[in-house]
Amino acid sequence: MSATARLPRGRQFFANPGPTNIPDSILKAVAHVTIDFNDPAFLAVYDHCVAGLKRVLRTEQEVFLYTGSGHAAWEAALVNLFSPGDTLLVVETGYFSESWAKMAQDLGLKVRTIAADWRRGVDYAAIRAALAADGAHEIKAVCAVHNETATGMVLPLTEVRAALDAAGHPALLLADTISSLGSIDFRMDAWGVDVAVGGSQKGLMLPTGMSFTGVSAKAMAAHAGSRLPKSYFNWTNMLARRHKSFIGTVPTSLFYGLKESLRLLEEEGLDQVFTRHARLAEAVRRCVRHWSGNNGPQLFCLSPDRYSDSVTAILMPEGHDAEAVRRIALQTFNVSLGGGLGRLGGQVFRIGHLGDLNEPMILGTLSTVEVALRLAGVPHASGGVDAAIAYLAEAARGG
Amino acid sequence: MSATARLPRGRQFFANPGPTNIPDSILKAVAHVTIDFNDPAFLAVYDHCVAGLKRVLRTEQEVFLYTGSGHAAWEAALVNLFSPGDTLLVVETGYFSESWAKMAQDLGLKVRTIAADWRRGVDYAAIRAALAADGAHEIKAVCAVHNETATGMVLPLTEVRAALDAAGHPALLLADTISSLGSIDFRMDAWGVDVAVGGSQKGLMLPTGMSFTGVSAKAMAAHAGSRLPKSYFNWTNMLARRHKSFIGTVPTSLFYGLKESLRLLEEEGLDQVFTRHARLAEAVRRCVRHWSGNNGPQLFCLSPDRYSDSVTAILMPEGHDAEAVRRIALQTFNVSLGGGLGRLGGQVFRIGHLGDLNEPMILGTLSTVEVALRLAGVPHASGGVDAAIAYLAEAARGG
Amino acid sequence: MSATARLPRGRQFFANPGPTNIPDSILKAVAHVTIDFNDPAFLAVYDHCVAGLKRVLRTEQEVFLYTGSGHAAWEAALVNLFSPGDTLLVVETGYFSESWAKMAQDLGLKVRTIAADWRRGVDYAAIRAALAADGAHEIKAVCAVHNETATGMVLPLTEVRAALDAAGHPALLLADTISSLGSIDFRMDAWGVDVAVGGSQKGLMLPTGMSFTGVSAKAMAAHAGSRLPKSYFNWTNMLARRHKSFIGTVPTSLFYGLKESLRLLEEEGLDQVFTRHARLAEAVRRCVRHWSGNNGPQLFCLSPDRYSDSVTAILMPEGHDAEAVRRIALQTFNVSLGGGLGRLGGQVFRIGHLGDLNEPMILGTLSTVEVALRLAGVPHASGGVDAAIAYLAEAARGG
Amino acid sequence: MSATARLPRGRQFFANPGPTNIPDSILKAVAHVTIDFNDPAFLAVYDHCVAGLKRVLRTEQEVFLYTGSGHAAWEAALVNLFSPGDTLLVVETGYFSESWAKMAQDLGLKVRTIAADWRRGVDYAAIRAALAADGAHEIKAVCAVHNETATGMVLPLTEVRAALDAAGHPALLLADTISSLGSIDFRMDAWGVDVAVGGSQKGLMLPTGMSFTGVSAKAMAAHAGSRLPKSYFNWTNMLARRHKSFIGTVPTSLFYGLKESLRLLEEEGLDQVFTRHARLAEAVRRCVRHWSGNNGPQLFCLSPDRYSDSVTAILMPEGHDAEAVRRIALQTFNVSLGGGLGRLGGQVFRIGHLGDLNEPMILGTLSTVEVALRLAGVPHASGGVDAAIAYLAEAARGG
Repeated sequence: MSATARLPRGRQFFANPGPTNIPDSILKAVAHVTIDFNDPAFLAVYDHCVAGLKRVLRTEQEVFLYTGSGHAAWEAALVNLFSPGDTLLVVETGYFSESWAKMAQDLGLKVRTIAADWRRGVDYAAIRAALAADGAHEIKAVCAVHNETATGMVLPLTEVRAALDAAGHPALLLADTISSLGSIDFRMDAWGVDVAVGGSQKGLMLPTGMSFTGVSAKAMAAHAGSRLPKSYFNWTNMLARRHKSFIGTVPTSLFYGLKESLRLLEEEGLDQVFTRHARLAEAVRRCVRHWSGNNGPQLFCLSPDRYSDSVTAILMPEGHDAEAVRRIALQTFNVSLGGGLGRLGGQVFRIGHLGDLNEPMILGTLSTVEVALRLAGVPHASGGVDAAIAYLAEAARGG
Repeated sequence: MSATARLPRGRQFFANPGPTNIPDSILKAVAHVTIDFNDPAFLAVYDHCVAGLKRVLRTEQEVFLYTGSGHAAWEAALVNLFSPGDTLLVVETGYFSESWAKMAQDLGLKVRTIAADWRRGVDYAAIRAALAADGAHEIKAVCAVHNETATGMVLPLTEVRAALDAAGHPALLLADTISSLGSIDFRMDAWGVDVAVGGSQKGLMLPTGMSFTGVSAKAMAAHAGSRLPKSYFNWTNMLARRHKSFIGTVPTSLFYGLKESLRLLEEEGLDQVFTRHARLAEAVRRCVRHWSGNNGPQLFCLSPDRYSDSVTAILMPEGHDAEAVRRIALQTFNVSLGGGLGRLGGQVFRIGHLGDLNEPMILGTLSTVEVALRLAGVPHASGGVDAAIAYLAEAARGG
Repeated sequence: MSATARLPRGRQFFANPGPTNIPDSILKAVAHVTIDFNDPAFLAVYDHCVAGLKRVLRTEQEVFLYTGSGHAAWEAALVNLFSPGDTLLVVETGYFSESWAKMAQDLGLKVRTIAADWRRGVDYAAIRAALAADGAHEIKAVCAVHNETATGMVLPLTEVRAALDAAGHPALLLADTISSLGSIDFRMDAWGVDVAVGGSQKGLMLPTGMSFTGVSAKAMAAHAGSRLPKSYFNWTNMLARRHKSFIGTVPTSLFYGLKESLRLLEEEGLDQVFTRHARLAEAVRRCVRHWSGNNGPQLFCLSPDRYSDSVTAILMPEGHDAEAVRRIALQTFNVSLGGGLGRLGGQVFRIGHLGDLNEPMILGTLSTVEVALRLAGVPHASGGVDAAIAYLAEAARGG
Repeated sequence: MSATARLPRGRQFFANPGPTNIPDSILKAVAHVTIDFNDPAFLAVYDHCVAGLKRVLRTEQEVFLYTGSGHAAWEAALVNLFSPGDTLLVVETGYFSESWAKMAQDLGLKVRTIAADWRRGVDYAAIRAALAADGAHEIKAVCAVHNETATGMVLPLTEVRAALDAAGHPALLLADTISSLGSIDFRMDAWGVDVAVGGSQKGLMLPTGMSFTGVSAKAMAAHAGSRLPKSYFNWTNMLARRHKSFIGTVPTSLFYGLKESLRLLEEEGLDQVFTRHARLAEAVRRCVRHWSGNNGPQLFCLSPDRYSDSVTAILMPEGHDAEAVRRIALQTFNVSLGGGLGRLGGQVFRIGHLGDLNEPMILGTLSTVEVALRLAGVPHASGGVDAAIAYLAEAARGG
């Protein structure tokens, strides 16, 4: 009935929105021999990378980098800006908005949450209302996850900015761009984002290990008054160093990778990168929509204007376990899919479609998922891949 | 109308039966620092590899290795065995049987050819007849390409052996196993093959650069009387060296790759490797057969008992250019397909399905070909990929 | 007069005690494609590495890992154990003991320092006295840098432990083993160390990016009462995860490197690794001692029982700039030496001799430094390398 | 007494003139995924490399490339130019001139040898005399090994050319540049060389596996009349292919390496590359000359005008075995030295100083050899490394 585990052969299809595929040229670049992080040869690479990172963030303000994962950058944003007892307004998007809120509380901050239906996304009016109600300006910042990796949904930051502006509220706007940056349009300065949190392991196509925050002048001013204890993440201490970032040893290897990542992104052009992500994402959605026909798996996201172009969450039909599909895909066909996070465990699986990706990778993934649905006995309208094929042909004709 | 060239992004799908995909672990192994080829540490690796290569060839007789491509091993077989004016019987299979015959003539040998329909394969009776007619035993050897890469067809070597035995003919049996070894069952000793010609760049999943010949005791006896001039390929000279192979510097890097290749093949088990190839090949054929429904592209091979499990040639409908399909696949979708060789140029394209390959790679390739057929305006019954999906699910259930 | 900058050719000699040379096999292992950090295949590697890391730390207690540099692990130790206003006793060793003390103060802790002469090392009696004077047990922990990278001196931890025991003082013993672990004997459990702070980029021969703390049961008890805010480094949160470490994405690449690092260390045997470091360190010291004859550069460390076997700091003669020597070594000969840190800037240069190192690397480095001393016009007794040669021959005879 | 074998740790010092050190950037470039050798993206790299190779050979005439080692290119030169029974004049230089002569005889050619003392080098007058005596122009070509790797001696090709010109002899001039090209000045067109034989694994710093011949118009004319059988090496067949080289599959990986090799060579500038080789070679000779003082090992070459700048052969004192020194260097210190070839076995060891090399690598090698001399009980004047240090300081001052 079920499929057998096989030795993995061929390259793994990594369709997990966790980290992303790393291009060969980046893998080679990262495999760099050790270099003194104060060596002039490295400093040139370093400065080149920081400048490039600002272009990707679309900011001309500060950027601080950390040896750490995305959560390190989340923490850096919080400890550098706030004081014990400060209040944050978190826009609920899913697992990651919950986690960031939990981190804030662990660090001694108060959190108010704008509740939202995870499948439909927040009602912008609720944000406006919450801000309007805060006449005393207790809210020091609004925290928004630009692209919620757990649900495959976007939170349009311009709407959050508009809500702040409409309320004339001075709170900072903190945006988690971890799974959007370099995959989906993001514009730190133009959109009035005060702190943009990003990591190496998604759209930048690097290994996990480096994260960063773009920081506005307004946020730097808030930093000056912050009283949460901090050292490893302390921006003031960082500014005193040659690198204007990092406390301690600089992770030089990742900079050689970042240099190549920037080259790839800018060779293709950020706009073209976003177009490619949108095209591949739409192919995935066309396929899933077809599958759903026969009481099959469906798109988790119910609001088409919130579809994420970097990850799609797929909701299983009642009574079917997403983990069974994932297990077959991984063990029999060497395809790694994302699982449901937190309360979505077992109910959804996720296809990451961000980073170094092309049509055959997506089509191979979708085809294999269709094989796995058959093997797992999950009802679905077969032919989903044909829908993706038809769409991609049409898109290439237009392209 | 047509698709646009795009910057290649994501990993290329290399579905060309030329060289094959090289697994990452082999790429890393080959990137080995220089080592003295007489260093005891290297000699241990070398001896390990030669022993493993014999297991893959399924021989306990001699193996000679060359720094060279497959054509080098072809030439080595000829110059070590024959004398000017000797006669060979070449079984026609396609482009590569023609090329080997041409090489023999360039080297001063005479060639008789058993003509065959390229789409149906040779009639075994014709081989028997040719040998029976050679009462004087002028034919010194029969040259057979086990797997004709140009047509995607197998020539069952046991039938050739049987023809020799039936005729009581003393000719040597020379087999080109370049695109079969490590992908399709081949048994040098059991099948009475006297010289097996193989290369690094197909089922062994290595870069191009090393080739080899398994050589039977009977062939070694023939070598003793050979008078074609030879030095770089001279087996006698090789036997005098520590390595019992190679004239000049030994390509040490490839041996580190070969060690890893043998580990991969033997970890999976040769029989499982062949089963995997057969399964993926059948998925390709199911897909192509479906496409053919609507006056679409069809399997070039018309004899099901001759289907190759390492490469499939696909014949375009009259009036449609295979090169247009290949160009779209490569330039728009980063999928490299094989083209038609020699007289098949423009008429066929080929999908290599050998080496380090799995289901999603095949499905991604087939899906992309289907997109390319649409874009190139080639008639076909859409849904070929569904046929492959259905078959692979069924095979995994049985698996 | 001075040497000319040249294009770097040949491999750089990295004799900087900053990060260390990364063996090729580790570089290749780190260049691993992305894998889901919850994939069973990765979890097996992960568990294998954590167990190995405990063997290297010589502990059977807890280990927590961080995506971060050594400073991250310093901070993790502090925020997990203490509450605002707690007092630490820092044993002065040099630049890094100062930095750790500064970090503690930044985080809201109080610091008492046992002052020490940087060239002679602390007087153990002073530690005993400080502890004895603390009848109220205000001191919550003693912080000791096992190997001070800035001065090339060891602080014997058994002496610190003995001082605590002699005073019957309940303070925790926190040891920074960043530049000793895997190079110099260290035994967490046997020596009664409560928290051992280590990083990936020294004796483990990995890129910068991962750090860790061994944590004793006694320290875990202290953790339970700690009130400093923490999230990214929170041990309690970590224990709730499958990995029992890390908050957020796990840096999978480094684990493939760590697996290879552990294989290398255990293939050689930790004791042999330490012997090799001691031998190469002694060769460096013999050479420097020779150079010093003619008012030349001398060993910074004046206490032979405190010599570090992983790094040697060399004090320039009055009036000569260490940076000039370093510049020539780097720009003309592609040898990277360490510079003087903090108040030692310009006065010392440092030779790192830890990690993946052998005799010719050390001799090449020393020879080149001797060339650079000539070019920089620094007085010295020439022939230092001969002293190293003589010693290494003698050691090999014994070996 | 003797040293113990140790596990190799640190990078091996490869001071063997066999293949040479491969720079990391070339190793990474060679680890290229498979690409169709007719893919336009590869053809661009291919054409770029062939043009660059001509610049390195300093020729504007033909170049043919082979999947093969240097011996393949030797054979290619012979089978493409000559007919059975043709006569060659081989200038004796050492092991490699003997080997080439032997190959010619194996292929059915006649060989006349200009005998020479291996330690002093050929007398140019003897070449002139042999040519003058050949009034019938039976000699079809003069074969000269530009740099005899076995003895560490150069044969000035301009002298050979001058002898041909003086005699007005029409013979072709064939030069083996395997261990000189890219390390020592060589000018194919300016020096009137008709065929220049080169390989990938020396000055080009690539793995073994590709060789080539520069071919003059005069040689192409001779090719037209050649009757030795040939196919794999056949220039005429090659010219009919898109690549104008290679029979069969093209070793694409090596071209990515060659592209990087050319970048490195041309970034530094060929003249600077030669200067660097000359400088490092002189350091080696200064060291050896010092060692020889006390009845120690001496330079094998007795003619200072014939010193090779890419390899130095060192003659052991009577009664001492070179292999014992090599064994200690390799097993105890991970330094690979070259051994004595052919009749020089046990009498000499060789230091390769070509390719990707710098001062510390040479000094580390020389220092370790001095340690090994001590351990092997070989008499020598200690302090050889000091002589090298003094010279390199002086050279850098001038540099």
